[in-house]
Amino acid sequence: MTPSSASLPLRERVGQINQRLKGWEAVRWVDGAPRITDVLRREVDRWGGIGALYGVLRADPWSQVRWSNGIPPARSAETYELVQDFVRTRGAGLPTLFVEEVPHGLMALGGTTVPVNLALGAGMDPELTAQLAAHIAAETRARGAHVALVSGLDILRDPRWGRAEECFSEDPALAAALMEATVRGMQGSRSDGRIDGDHIAVVAKHLAAQGAGIGGRNGSGAPIGRRELGEIHLRPAYAAARAGVAGFMAAYNDIDGVACTANRDLLTGTLRDDWNWTGIVMADGTAVDRLRDSTPDPATAAALAIHAGVDLSLWDEAFTHVEEAVQRGILDEADVTRAADRVLALKERVGLLDGSISRDHAAEPDAATTREFIALVSRAAAQACVLVHDDDALPLPASAVVAVIGPNADDLEAQLGDYTPPRPQDDPGVSTVRSALEARHGVGNVRYAQGSGHRTALSDEATAAVDDALAGATAAVVVLGGTSRRSYEDEFADNGAVDGPAPDTTNGEGVDLSRLALPAEQLALLRAARAAVPLVIAVLIDGRPRPLDELIPLCDALIVSPFPGPAGGAAIVDVIAGGRGGGLLPATHPRVDGVLPVAHDERMETARGYVDARIPVGQLFGAGAPAGITVTLRPADPGIATDALNDGDTVTLHADIVNSSDSAVSLAVPLYGRRHERGLRPRRRTLLSVRRVRVEARSGAVLPFVLGADELGSWAAGRPEAAPAEVLAWTASTHDPPADAVTVRITDGKGRTGWES
Amino acid sequence: MTPSSASLPLRERVGQINQRLKGWEAVRWVDGAPRITDVLRREVDRWGGIGALYGVLRADPWSQVRWSNGIPPARSAETYELVQDFVRTRGAGLPTLFVEEVPHGLMALGGTTVPVNLALGAGMDPELTAQLAAHIAAETRARGAHVALVSGLDILRDPRWGRAEECFSEDPALAAALMEATVRGMQGSRSDGRIDGDHIAVVAKHLAAQGAGIGGRNGSGAPIGRRELGEIHLRPAYAAARAGVAGFMAAYNDIDGVACTANRDLLTGTLRDDWNWTGIVMADGTAVDRLRDSTPDPATAAALAIHAGVDLSLWDEAFTHVEEAVQRGILDEADVTRAADRVLALKERVGLLDGSISRDHAAEPDAATTREFIALVSRAAAQACVLVHDDDALPLPASAVVAVIGPNADDLEAQLGDYTPPRPQDDPGVSTVRSALEARHGVGNVRYAQGSGHRTALSDEATAAVDDALAGATAAVVVLGGTSRRSYEDEFADNGAVDGPAPDTTNGEGVDLSRLALPAEQLALLRAARAAVPLVIAVLIDGRPRPLDELIPLCDALIVSPFPGPAGGAAIVDVIAGGRGGGLLPATHPRVDGVLPVAHDERMETARGYVDARIPVGQLFGAGAPAGITVTLRPADPGIATDALNDGDTVTLHADIVNSSDSAVSLAVPLYGRRHERGLRPRRRTLLSVRRVRVEARSGAVLPFVLGADELGSWAAGRPEAAPAEVLAWTASTHDPPADAVTVRITDGKGRTGWES
Repeated sequence: MTPSSASLPLRERVGQINQRLKGWEAVRWVDGAPRITDVLRREVDRWGGIGALYGVLRADPWSQVRWSNGIPPARSAETYELVQDFVRTRGAGLPTLFVEEVPHGLMALGGTTVPVNLALGAGMDPELTAQLAAHIAAETRARGAHVALVSGLDILRDPRWGRAEECFSEDPALAAALMEATVRGMQGSRSDGRIDGDHIAVVAKHLAAQGAGIGGRNGSGAPIGRRELGEIHLRPAYAAARAGVAGFMAAYNDIDGVACTANRDLLTGTLRDDWNWTGIVMADGTAVDRLRDSTPDPATAAALAIHAGVDLSLWDEAFTHVEEAVQRGILDEADVTRAADRVLALKERVGLLDGSISRDHAAEPDAATTREFIALVSRAAAQACVLVHDDDALPLPASAVVAVIGPNADDLEAQLGDYTPPRPQDDPGVSTVRSALEARHGVGNVRYAQGSGHRTALSDEATAAVDDALAGATAAVVVLGGTSRRSYEDEFADNGAVDGPAPDTTNGEGVDLSRLALPAEQLALLRAARAAVPLVIAVLIDGRPRPLDELIPLCDALIVSPFPGPAGGAAIVDVIAGGRGGGLLPATHPRVDGVLPVAHDERMETARGYVDARIPVGQLFGAGAPAGITVTLRPADPGIATDALNDGDTVTLHADIVNSSDSAVSLAVPLYGRRHERGLRPRRRTLLSVRRVRVEARSGAVLPFVLGADELGSWAAGRPEAAPAEVLAWTASTHDPPADAVTVRITDGKGRTGWES
Repeated sequence: MTPSSASLPLRERVGQINQRLKGWEAVRWVDGAPRITDVLRREVDRWGGIGALYGVLRADPWSQVRWSNGIPPARSAETYELVQDFVRTRGAGLPTLFVEEVPHGLMALGGTTVPVNLALGAGMDPELTAQLAAHIAAETRARGAHVALVSGLDILRDPRWGRAEECFSEDPALAAALMEATVRGMQGSRSDGRIDGDHIAVVAKHLAAQGAGIGGRNGSGAPIGRRELGEIHLRPAYAAARAGVAGFMAAYNDIDGVACTANRDLLTGTLRDDWNWTGIVMADGTAVDRLRDSTPDPATAAALAIHAGVDLSLWDEAFTHVEEAVQRGILDEADVTRAADRVLALKERVGLLDGSISRDHAAEPDAATTREFIALVSRAAAQACVLVHDDDALPLPASAVVAVIGPNADDLEAQLGDYTPPRPQDDPGVSTVRSALEARHGVGNVRYAQGSGHRTALSDEATAAVDDALAGATAAVVVLGGTSRRSYEDEFADNGAVDGPAPDTTNGEGVDLSRLALPAEQLALLRAARAAVPLVIAVLIDGRPRPLDELIPLCDALIVSPFPGPAGGAAIVDVIAGGRGGGLLPATHPRVDGVLPVAHDERMETARGYVDARIPVGQLFGAGAPAGITVTLRPADPGIATDALNDGDTVTLHADIVNSSDSAVSLAVPLYGRRHERGLRPRRRTLLSVRRVRVEARSGAVLPFVLGADELGSWAAGRPEAAPAEVLAWTASTHDPPADAVTVRITDGKGRTGWES
C-alpha cells in the first residue's frame, strides 16, 4: 500500500517536498563528534520535519569540507543516525531521506572515485558499468545515505560544454545502455521494487536535453523539436525509467522555451502518462528560483513547478511559498499532496517507513570487496584508453629511456574530473603516467617535466626543464589535455558551479570553452619532443573531444583518454606497453574549432562542409578499433513485422570476430545502422548496439546482436515504437554503410517496409 | 472563377507542374536572334505544354551566359514572346509562366543590382525597400517575366552560413517588415488580387528555417521545435502570406527530421489550414530529387512532395514520374489536379489566361524612372553603412591625403553579393571606396594598394605597394571583408551553388566558413596602416557579421557595410565625409570565433559565457546609432485586453526624438521589448518595431509606434495570437531593459496579465 500524506497538515506536507539545506551546514564535525546545527533545527521546527537532506557528506571546494574539518568516513553512519533521530523526534515523526552527490563515485571524504561517465562511454561495457555502480551503491549506502544523484542522462552534443565529461556519449543508444546499467547496479533488481540495504536509490540527472544548449553554454536553451528530443535526448531517461529509477532531476535549461522545471509536457506527459513511470522528480539546485523570469513571484514559481510535476526542491526559496500558493488559489492542494506522497513512496521504497533497513544492512564493505572495487576501477581505466593513432610506434620497449612531459603527465587531479572529493593523504591505488612509467622503466630511466599549464604558460625554467628531460631520451610521452580541478580558493555560484575558476582550469560545470584546440603552450611541448626525440607518444587526458588534427603529425602514436580516474596512469602505460587501446571514442572529435556541432548521427544533408574545413569531422565516434581483429557481419534473417516489434520479437545478427594476433584482446564491437523510414531524412549513422567480447589469441568468436524495438523502431515520440523501415547494419567504422551492409526489413501487415519501389 | 485543370489529360496536368528546364538552354541567342532549342521542343512535346520556364534570362557564371553570348536586354521581351508563342502553338494551348531569379535585382544582363537583403536590413526602412521592389518588378516585368524568385524568408542565425547576405536580419520582426514591403512593392496591391503589367508575382524563398541549419552548413538539418519555428523562422513567411505573396519556395533543409519539400505540416497545415493562404509552393532546385534519402524511388519522392503540398518542381527528374506514381496508386490524381490548378491560378493572377496583359503593359522604364531607381539604390547603399566605432576620427577633411588599401577598396564585384549578373562594360553609376575617395579628395591625393586577397596573401610586390601607398598619407582607409564573387571558371553543383569556388571567395551559396575572424593577411594591412599613418579608418564590406574586436583597437573609426551594391563606394565615403552612418547592425556580431550562434533575442539563461570568452556578443543587433540624437520613450497607455489584440486593437507608444546636432539626420529608431508570459522563458530582447525618421538640425520629432498582435502577441504557433503578458519596451541599445523601460500590459478578460503577484 502506498503511503499517503493526506492526513498531514499542509505545513508538514510542504516540509516533505522541501530540500532546502546544504547538509554540511546542517551537521558539523566539532571536537570529534557530529553536532546538529541551528540551520537544521530551524528547518525541522519550521515544517515539523523535512523531506530530504542534501549533502551531509559532500566534500569539495564549494562546501569547503576537507579532511581537516569534515566528518571522517568511519563516522558517517553515526552522523546520519544522529540527524535521523533528531528529525524524527523533534519533528512530527517522519524520517528524512539522505541524498548525496554520486556522479562518479560518492563525493564524500573517502569515497571511491571511478572514471567519469565519458570514460565509461569509451569502454562501452554495460556489465562493468553495472558492477562499478553496485560497488558505489554499497559504499554509499554503508555510509547511511539513501539517494544518489547520478549524472548520465545528458548527451554530449557540443564539446564546448564543460559538463561533457558527465555524459556517457554523444550517442543516445550507448548512453541509454550505460544509464540502464547504472540504475540496475545501484538500485539492485528486487522483484518487489524495493531498494535494499546494499543498494541505493538513484535520481538520474538531468532531464532533459541539457546537452543541446545553444553554443555548448551551460544552462542555455535547447530550442529543439519533439523528434530530436525523442531520438537523441530522452533515450537514456527512458532506459532509466524502464529500469525503475527512483527519480529524475529536472534540468536547468528550457526546451523550446519552456524551462524543464516548469515543463508539464515533459515531467507529467512524457514521464508519467507516456512511460507509466512512478517516482519522484527533483528540481536541480535553485532551479525553481530560476523560474523568476517565467513567473511574477516565488509562490507562482513553486506552483508552476509543482503543477508541472516537480515533487522535491533543491535549495530553493520558492518552495517555502507553497502554502501561500495554495492560499492564493494558484496551486491545487491536491498537487502538494501528490508530490508529498511521492516523497513518502520513495522513503518506503528504501525501507525508511517500515524500519526494514537498519545499520546492519549497510555494513562497510570488507577488504575483499574493496579490492574488487579497486580492480574494477582499474579495468574501467583500461577501457577508457583509446588508441587513435599508431604509426608502428607501440609497444614501447621497457628498456626505453623516457621523457614524460606535459601538464597531465603527473597531475592526479586532472585524471579525476569534476564533482570529486579531496583525495586522502594515503592513496595507494593511484597512478599518473609519470608514476606508471617509473614503475615500468625504472625511476632512473624516466625524466619528468611539466612544461606548461593547461591554459597558461609556465616560467622559462619550466621550459628549460623540458629540454633537460628530452635530452638523451629515446622516447617521449607527452601528456596533454584539460582538467576539471577545483580549488578551495575558487569562487562558486549559488548552485556550486565554479564561477571564477583558476585560470588553469578547463573543464567541468561552469567551465565552458569557446576554443577546443589545444593551446599553443601545450602544442609547443609536442613540437619540442618531436624535434628532440626519435619516438613521440602523445596522450590526451581530457573530459571532452578536442580537435586532434594538429597533434597527429607531431607524434608517432596518440592515446585519447577521457578522465580515466585514479588508476589512469597505469592504464595509459599499459597501452604504451601493449600496443592496444581498451576502448573506442565515445564522441566525435571535430577536425578543427569552428565546425561545431558535429556528431556521427547527424541527418543526411547536402552540405559540403565549409570551404575552409571541407570535412568537419576529425575522428568519428567509435574510432580506435584494435589492429589484428576482423569483424564480419553475417547476412540477416528475412526480417520482422512491426507488430512483432511491438510484441517484443527480435532479429539476431551474428558477427564473426577473428583475432589474428598473438595476444588475447578485449574489445567493444559496435553495430552501426542507418534507418530508412519513408518521409524522414535518415541519420547518417547511428549506433544500433554494442557488445564487448574477449577473444583469445589466434582465435575467433561469434557475437550475436539481438535487435528489437529499441534498436529498430522509431524513437520520434520518446519511446520505441514499431514503424515499417529498412535498416542497414554494419560493423565497419565507416560513416556510410559499406557495400556489404546487411539489411533488416521491418514490415507492416502486408509485408512492406515502405521502401519498395 | 478559378481556372481548373481537371479537363486536361493527366499528362498535360503533369506538364503544368513540371519546371524542369534551365531557360538559357531552352532558347539561345544565335546570330542576332533568339532561337528555340531542341531542349524546349522535346519538353513541350512531351507534356503538351509546360507549366513554367525558369531562367530564360539568367546570366551568371553557372549559366555561362555573359554579355558576349546572352540575350541583349532590349531583346528580352521579344525572346519571351517567341517562346510563349512556341509553347502555346506547339503545345495544347496553355501559356507558360516565365520565372527569373530576382534576389536583389533581376539576375539578367542589364538587370539593376540593388544592395543585398542584409544591407536593406541595416537600413531598416520598409518604405525604401518597397520602392526598390517596385522598380525591380517593373524592370523585370518589362523584360517579359511573370514570376520573381526572391530571397527574404531566411533568418540569419549562424553567420558561418554563406547565404547570410540573403537574409534581411537575425531578427524576425525586421525580416518580416522588409519581406512584406518587398511583396507589396513587387506585386502591387490591387484590390482584386491581380498582379498587373507593372508588377510581378513573387515566390518568396526559402520556407522554412534554412537559417537554423546545424553549424551554419548550407542545407543541413534544423532540429528545432515548434515555438522556435514560429517565433523566429515563420514570421517573414506569415507577413508575405498576409500580403498575398504568389508563392513560396520550399527549402532544402529538414525541420526536425522532415525535409521541407516533404513537409505536409508546413506546406499544407501551416500555409493553407492555419494561414488560409492560397498560392503555389515551388520546390527548390532539385529538391524533390534530394528526397532520395527519404523515399525508395523518384515516383515516391514526387508523390511525397505533391501530397505534402509542393505544386511546381524545379529541375527535378522526380516530377517526370508523377503519372507513374498515380498509376502505382501512391499518389491521388486529385492531388495532381490541385497542384496544376494552383499553377493555372497563378497564370490567371498575372493575366496570362485572359490576355489581360500584353507587351503594352510592360514598357521599358523611361529615363526618369531609371534615374529614380538609381537614386534609390544609392539611398539604400547609404543606409547600409553602419558606423560602429568613431573615436572622434570623423568627419575626415577633404584636404586629407588618403591611402586606400585592402581587398575591398576597389573591387566592385565584392560590393554586390551572390546571384549577381555580369556588369555591363559601361556602368556609370558605380563607385568603389577608391573611386569615391578620388572623386572627393582628387586623384592625386589618393594612393591605392590592394595589399591582400580575401583569403589569400598576394605577392611581395603587393605588400611593398601598401607601404608605398601609406608613405606620406595623412589618413588611411583600409577596406577589408569578404566577397561573393563567382567566376566563369568556378565549378558548380547541380543547383547552381558554387562547388569549388575560387580560393579567394568567402561568401554566398555553397561558401560556408568555419572561421569568421578576418584572416591574418587582412589584419596585417590594418596593422601596417596603424603603424604608418596617424588616422586609420577601417571599413568592413561583407555579407555576414564578423568578429570585430581585433579590428577596433587598430583603427580610429570603423564602418560596417553589408554588401552595399554598386553605389557602395560613394555611400561609404559619405560616411567618412559626414561622420554619420546611415543604418544599424542587422545582426549581432560574435565577439570571437567559437561562440556561435549568438543573437540578441536568445532566451534568458543562466550561462555565464565561456571561461575563455565571457561575453560572446561583440556588437549587438541595432548597434550604430548616430551621435547627437536622444530618444525618449513616453510612458504607456494603460494597456489592452487580449481580445482587443485579436480584434486588431493597438496601443501606441510615442518616442520623442531630439537632434541636438547641426545637421539633419535620417535614422532608424528601434523599439526593443522583452515579453513576459507566464511559464515561458523570455527572450532577452526582441525587436518590437522599428521606424525610420528624418529629423532636422537642432530640432525634434515625435515618433509613434503602433503595437498590436504582431508586436505584442505570441508567435509560438506561427501566427500572432493574443495571450496575456507584460511587455517591457525601450529604445536604448542596451541588451537588458533600462530602469525607465515602459511596461505594456496585455490582460485577459479579468484585467490580469498573468504577471501579478
